[in-house]
Amino acid sequence: MPVEESNRGPEVLLAVRRTADAPPLGAQVEAGLRAAVRDGRLRPGDRLPPSRTLARDLGVSRRLVVDAYDQLVAEAWLEARVGAGTFVRRALPAHPDGARAAPPDDPVPAPTGVPATARPDGRPRIDFFPGHPDLAAFPRADWQRATRAALRELPDAALGYADPRGLRELRVALAALLARTRGVVCRPGQIVLCQGVVQALGLLVRATGGPGGPVRVAVEDPYLHEHRDVLHHAGAEVVPVPVDELGVRDEAVAAARPDLALVTPAHQCPTGVVLAAGRRVALARWAERHDALLVEDDYDAEYRYDRAPVAALQALAPRQVVYLGSTSKTLAPGLRLAWMVVPEDRLAAVVQAKRYADGGSPVLEQAAFARLLAAGAYDRHVRAARRRQRGRRDALVAAVARELDGARVDGVAAGLHALVRLPAAVDAAALVAAARARDVGVYPLSAYRADPPAKTAAVVLGYGALGEAAIAQGVRGLAAALRDVR
Amino acid sequence: MPVEESNRGPEVLLAVRRTADAPPLGAQVEAGLRAAVRDGRLRPGDRLPPSRTLARDLGVSRRLVVDAYDQLVAEAWLEARVGAGTFVRRALPAHPDGARAAPPDDPVPAPTGVPATARPDGRPRIDFFPGHPDLAAFPRADWQRATRAALRELPDAALGYADPRGLRELRVALAALLARTRGVVCRPGQIVLCQGVVQALGLLVRATGGPGGPVRVAVEDPYLHEHRDVLHHAGAEVVPVPVDELGVRDEAVAAARPDLALVTPAHQCPTGVVLAAGRRVALARWAERHDALLVEDDYDAEYRYDRAPVAALQALAPRQVVYLGSTSKTLAPGLRLAWMVVPEDRLAAVVQAKRYADGGSPVLEQAAFARLLAAGAYDRHVRAARRRQRGRRDALVAAVARELDGARVDGVAAGLHALVRLPAAVDAAALVAAARARDVGVYPLSAYRADPPAKTAAVVLGYGALGEAAIAQGVRGLAAALRDVR
Repeated sequence: MPVEESNRGPEVLLAVRRTADAPPLGAQVEAGLRAAVRDGRLRPGDRLPPSRTLARDLGVSRRLVVDAYDQLVAEAWLEARVGAGTFVRRALPAHPDGARAAPPDDPVPAPTGVPATARPDGRPRIDFFPGHPDLAAFPRADWQRATRAALRELPDAALGYADPRGLRELRVALAALLARTRGVVCRPGQIVLCQGVVQALGLLVRATGGPGGPVRVAVEDPYLHEHRDVLHHAGAEVVPVPVDELGVRDEAVAAARPDLALVTPAHQCPTGVVLAAGRRVALARWAERHDALLVEDDYDAEYRYDRAPVAALQALAPRQVVYLGSTSKTLAPGLRLAWMVVPEDRLAAVVQAKRYADGGSPVLEQAAFARLLAAGAYDRHVRAARRRQRGRRDALVAAVARELDGARVDGVAAGLHALVRLPAAVDAAALVAAARARDVGVYPLSAYRADPPAKTAAVVLGYGALGEAAIAQGVRGLAAALRDVR
Repeated sequence: MPVEESNRGPEVLLAVRRTADAPPLGAQVEAGLRAAVRDGRLRPGDRLPPSRTLARDLGVSRRLVVDAYDQLVAEAWLEARVGAGTFVRRALPAHPDGARAAPPDDPVPAPTGVPATARPDGRPRIDFFPGHPDLAAFPRADWQRATRAALRELPDAALGYADPRGLRELRVALAALLARTRGVVCRPGQIVLCQGVVQALGLLVRATGGPGGPVRVAVEDPYLHEHRDVLHHAGAEVVPVPVDELGVRDEAVAAARPDLALVTPAHQCPTGVVLAAGRRVALARWAERHDALLVEDDYDAEYRYDRAPVAALQALAPRQVVYLGSTSKTLAPGLRLAWMVVPEDRLAAVVQAKRYADGGSPVLEQAAFARLLAAGAYDRHVRAARRRQRGRRDALVAAVARELDGARVDGVAAGLHALVRLPAAVDAAALVAAARARDVGVYPLSAYRADPPAKTAAVVLGYGALGEAAIAQGVRGLAAALRDVR
């Protein structure tokens, strides 16, 4: 039981603890006096007890109290008046009361990446929330080994202020990975590590800004509202451009006259269509003619199940395309580990934007990821994830065929989500609510529209984090919800 | 030795490798054709060999070549014309030539945090570059243990998209640390993790912006040019305010009418003076009256050698002060691990700015740091660093007394750098060059001025990363350099 002593005046000003784990007595006296001023037990102008008295009351040395008073005079809580004693400073800022007035709760904000209209209050039991990989599969042991190796091998200088692009050994490994798996053409110096695609978008807007008014960014419609919000926040003007079954419409991109066009050629987000060859060329040529940038968000290209993925648009036009990739869909979004491949003539501006944004990304994580790549552990992990995800997609396709008369899974066999076309348009909010009542989270395509209609004829179902049984059960729930709202 | 085969036409279009480590043949054919188009061996309009011919030449199955052609048609490199064969697409964007035209070198940018005028080309042998802790002392084994524990204990959900403020367990641990060591008053919900003080400054400018024109930020003069650049880049208007021996002049801050004032009350950067009690109160009251924010950069408060550090200004005015701290001076800048304590009524805007900046900081690093704190390893590390740095400062003071007639070490006994007042003003550039010729890096105070004079009467010497012998030797070099330029 802690031994407590206090000064025995009419009001208890201070108490000190003498247990083994207690802070030093001097620190306790200082902290106690600060708290007394803060919470109003001592008010501006109040005289403090003479140091001798307080020391006797507390059973501490007088020196200790004198030092505490000195310290608090230096910090502006107290003032010493010659011959009169020590007082609470009269001119203190208004009673702050911060500690006590603060709400005790600390709510966690809603998850990002979901349109606000589709954001559930809590998480349903079976949640088709798109965009998450299977976090239970994160290769913890491999990451642990990679971190250990990084800590053993990294030179001291790498722990200092460094190249804002990131660790060179990782950029070398990434250039090789991207060439091999995505056909990306670049040298390591063109790679800039960043904290997720979210940061990349902000940096690109800032690196593109000029005197001609706000940066105009064309985005595919439907799209992630989160990306639009990020672009807005960075000061961009966002222009939605329609997507059809061949991908984003290139003539609509050109008509929007954007400085940047954010596109998802390998697997449009969220419809799942692949950008047609003719449109790839047309976009690249448009970008060339107008010296515009195509921003290729290659967010889930690791997951193509029916054939080799279509290679990156970047290789077709390395001078006009910024290529964006990340580990958010392969390892975990919480790593915040992403990269840009930047055309040579834009590189300086983007590196400067990154430098001023945060001075560069954390180095130990980069070093660990470089070792995960070098050891082949990343390739193994992605291959295993691809097999698992293909099984889940097959389960989704089968469940839709079985449970949802007249519905079909749209888009190519790829990614961590699928677009399910419903047999008829239904009220989107009612469908979400009916599914929610059955503890199933579904995300209507309409919620991804720039100008969301009230009705939806398709839902975006993320299956990456759900087992096959849960997928089947969830689709049953969706079918029941559809019957509820019809 | 790798076995190579190629098609034996007049020009070698493709070669495939059959070694154990070679990519699959199909991938090789695809990559080879892409490269041939890219580097001009195949030009727009060129007809490709019939698939049967190329298959025979390469000794691969015809199916494999057909698949490769299909793939490259989908990617827009080739086009198929019915009855005529397969051609390189005519409408390809202009020959990009990106891979070959790129410079082979990959230069590392100059270190940040140093005024450009003081930036050496390479690093001198004894470098008094300020701002670095001793990176050789980074607690690698402790960090390794903390990472292992984090990977064992962290729930899967923590690896997903999360609270942009950061991991709650770390914010709880930080609130306790800051209360204990710096007297900071806050709840964990007010803490926002960020990538260094650099990111914090940008976020605060963006969270403060309003319709009344650019955000005005008062900065202390002298200051770090890096901070001014970051503020500029975020769109702020920067107003320098003079510092004297009592710290920043509060009436000059008020006269500048800023929205934010960036201050270093515990140990002014770079002069080393402590903000006087009266000025603390005056600043806090000014901020209250004008609803302005004081941004308290508490960058090296862990290192006070002669007495307990003066507690944070934040406690005096929690509603008007954003408190900034980081591990850059205690562990390593490469971690990019910093935090803000934000007043309640500014919290939502700052959290939103962080969310849109990068979606939050990496989670595994936060989890490791939380465990380092919980295990007491961080406290132990800081105590050991403080002892070591105190020895180094003593060595500097002794060397200055011994070698530099009429010079004195200014500022309080704290931090990782000291201001050395020279016996007379000298040409700053000549001094830097003369010291550099003796393989010593010194940083004139004039280079930290908003309006740098050509002459300097003081140098800022960082001793955090130098051993005591090197410090003594470096000061001898500085003394010799002074004789050279006088």
